[in-house]
Amino acid sequence: MKILINKRWSLVILLFVFLIAMNATVMSQSKTQMVRLAKIKVDPAQLDKYNAALKEQMTTAIKVEPGVLTYYAVSDKKDPSSITILEIYADTSAYNLHITTPHFKKYKDVVKDMVKSLELVDVNIVGVAKKRDH
Amino acid sequence: MKILINKRWSLVILLFVFLIAMNATVMSQSKTQMVRLAKIKVDPAQLDKYNAALKEQMTTAIKVEPGVLTYYAVSDKKDPSSITILEIYADTSAYNLHITTPHFKKYKDVVKDMVKSLELVDVNIVGVAKKRDH
Repeated sequence: MKILINKRWSLVILLFVFLIAMNATVMSQSKTQMVRLAKIKVDPAQLDKYNAALKEQMTTAIKVEPGVLTYYAVSDKKDPSSITILEIYADTSAYNLHITTPHFKKYKDVVKDMVKSLELVDVNIVGVAKKRDH
Repeated sequence: MKILINKRWSLVILLFVFLIAMNATVMSQSKTQMVRLAKIKVDPAQLDKYNAALKEQMTTAIKVEPGVLTYYAVSDKKDPSSITILEIYADTSAYNLHITTPHFKKYKDVVKDMVKSLELVDVNIVGVAKKRDH
């Protein structure tokens, strides 16, 4: 019985070590990451449709592409048609693959007459601090 | 001995239920969140000192303030003294509390002669999609 407890607890301990190791991997990957701010002006008359297309693209990319890590899309409170997206990819290869995917091509096609301007700013991460699960 | 195992496993199960519950809370909180982009131009000669002060502020706030949820600080690759911070607070009360804390006041004092301009843009989240642990 004592051995059984130890086995079970070993499993729990292994699980925690694995979770810590996963976190560590995330940290060490950051130097290869490609990070970008996309600044987009959308036709206000088509904003709801644009936001729906954007959310579909983001959600699909995160689900199906291992190298697409993070999207935060925000809109100015004073001008909701002014949108900023923080995008994080594992590396430039992951990004180059991303822009060839069916869901990205579909997004670009659907929004082509909704986007009035698009500015892409390559950035480096200065720091990230978050509560767990945020 | 059997009781001991059950107690231990109850603890593990409770921990997982608690973690799942925490996730659910996070989701339902999003409507009350205060989200902001801070756009900062830093004196290039003092950039390293500024970045260190910023990271210390961010890390401390996340650790000690329950209502400070997320910070992503990024700098333009073409102009590292141009910094954008995505800030997420649980609600406006959490933010109002944040700006009274010793670590925030210390940061503001340390950087007051390093910051050339500061623009605060209140934003709404259009969508967030992330890999777990990102």
